[in-house]
Amino acid sequence: MTGSATDDRRVALAVDVGGTKLEAALVRADGTVVDGTRSRRPTGPDATFDSLRTAIGEVVAHALAGRASEDELVGAGIGSAGPVDREQGAIVPVNMPGAHGFGLRDAVRSAAEAEHGAPVETVLAHDGGCLALAEARYGATRGAAASLSIVVSTGVGGGFVVDGRYLPGSSGNAGHLGQVHATPELTVEQVASGPASVAWARTQGWTGQQGEDLARDAKAGDAIARAAIERSARTVGAALADASTLVDLEVVAIGGGFSRVADDYIDLVQAALTESAQHDYSRRTRVVRSGLGDEGPLIGAAALVLR
Amino acid sequence: MTGSATDDRRVALAVDVGGTKLEAALVRADGTVVDGTRSRRPTGPDATFDSLRTAIGEVVAHALAGRASEDELVGAGIGSAGPVDREQGAIVPVNMPGAHGFGLRDAVRSAAEAEHGAPVETVLAHDGGCLALAEARYGATRGAAASLSIVVSTGVGGGFVVDGRYLPGSSGNAGHLGQVHATPELTVEQVASGPASVAWARTQGWTGQQGEDLARDAKAGDAIARAAIERSARTVGAALADASTLVDLEVVAIGGGFSRVADDYIDLVQAALTESAQHDYSRRTRVVRSGLGDEGPLIGAAALVLR
Repeated sequence: MTGSATDDRRVALAVDVGGTKLEAALVRADGTVVDGTRSRRPTGPDATFDSLRTAIGEVVAHALAGRASEDELVGAGIGSAGPVDREQGAIVPVNMPGAHGFGLRDAVRSAAEAEHGAPVETVLAHDGGCLALAEARYGATRGAAASLSIVVSTGVGGGFVVDGRYLPGSSGNAGHLGQVHATPELTVEQVASGPASVAWARTQGWTGQQGEDLARDAKAGDAIARAAIERSARTVGAALADASTLVDLEVVAIGGGFSRVADDYIDLVQAALTESAQHDYSRRTRVVRSGLGDEGPLIGAAALVLR
Repeated sequence: MTGSATDDRRVALAVDVGGTKLEAALVRADGTVVDGTRSRRPTGPDATFDSLRTAIGEVVAHALAGRASEDELVGAGIGSAGPVDREQGAIVPVNMPGAHGFGLRDAVRSAAEAEHGAPVETVLAHDGGCLALAEARYGATRGAAASLSIVVSTGVGGGFVVDGRYLPGSSGNAGHLGQVHATPELTVEQVASGPASVAWARTQGWTGQQGEDLARDAKAGDAIARAAIERSARTVGAALADASTLVDLEVVAIGGGFSRVADDYIDLVQAALTESAQHDYSRRTRVVRSGLGDEGPLIGAAALVLR
């Protein structure tokens, strides 16, 4: 017997709650999802306390049913669309008004303990924080003294990891880059998200409908589509420059659908960051592409309890 | 014998290096400066490696000479005008070009060890971080899960404390709020500092010379002087709203000369923060006046090693 990773039988229950779906799985200490344990249920703007509780009961039961007898369950980690209330273990998700105040932490704990038959340490964070933790543990920001990991998609958001630890902030919401101001009137998300970029291009006379159209048209040489992409990257880069001046970041990882709208999106963000940053230390901040796949949110949720 | 604070004989050597002076003192674990140990030397824009090394040798020797035989020296903490290079233990101060790259940490360590005759653990941080640590340990942000403490003076800057620990960032420079953008063209410091506020008022036809004049004239009913003060507070408040959206702060403490330019300056900042913040959790961030006196930087430097 050695102490190698393959002998590590610790597993965590991971739960990710988003605006369109929630899912759960078992995750091993090496960041892999246990085969057959992942399942999902729809959420959406009509989600209620009852619908969430039922869905959580089902995906948690499914995940824990896939545990081998020699696996040691170390706890449950939960990532949720923000904002969250870390102290109460509740969520206040922007896109699910009927779920405001839902005690997500206790719901997951109850479901897990009902299956497990013993106490289960349960930790809640917002999904941006989980993503940042996954990126720092298994992805593109490994080894950084201080990092920010974000997604640029329908929204813009992320989380910080400092000295290997997720930085929750006082109520668990650090990392909401999208709601920082890009101009005195508009937030980063209102300028640079996928939908905002599409809407801006349409005001300029472009006639496409969505991010994929922008990607295709920009590649084909459409000047407005290209300008919309550059405008998004420039806005994100300037916001990251200020974030790095403020928090002193070694590296920023970017994922999310709209970050793939152009092959050079990450390079455009890096150029804008370097140009806008006001100190040498923040000009040095590197911008890299996310190293995570679609399991990132679950792996990050698990990392809250797999230390 | 009890374990009460008065029996705590631990002391730290504290050194604070600024753009106009450097000073040192011994500080006890309860945050008090040991009588007779504090002294200072001028620095200024002409400071060189040699002049700094000489001055440090003198103030360190003076401080350590005041130590009682029963006092236990736990280490040396240093706060410096930023930016700093935490890894190298060097400083790159904006206002002292001849001191760029000066190995401040080793200079203090050598001077301390020469007096002490034994190894001295020596820690360097930027002065904003030290101030934040002093505020969290002995001042206005005690007990907060996450706080930012800033000064509004000739410059604008500060530091973060999260879960009782100073947040250095990757190179030791987290907290430089003054170099975050207030508009796409101007930084917070370029709009809201004392000199920037004076300069703006003069463009509006006001004829005073400095912050004290603004304070006096605003109190006497001068509309331009009052507008300059409100403009500063609004800019600082909006920047703090974004900082809190990003880092999720429970409380922000404000000190520095220009923060006393009007009795309601803190209230004006709070109002601007609350209005500008984009999430409930950041709207709840409290803005308070600094609880520190002029010993704050030294006490904070000592707190780097008095844990």
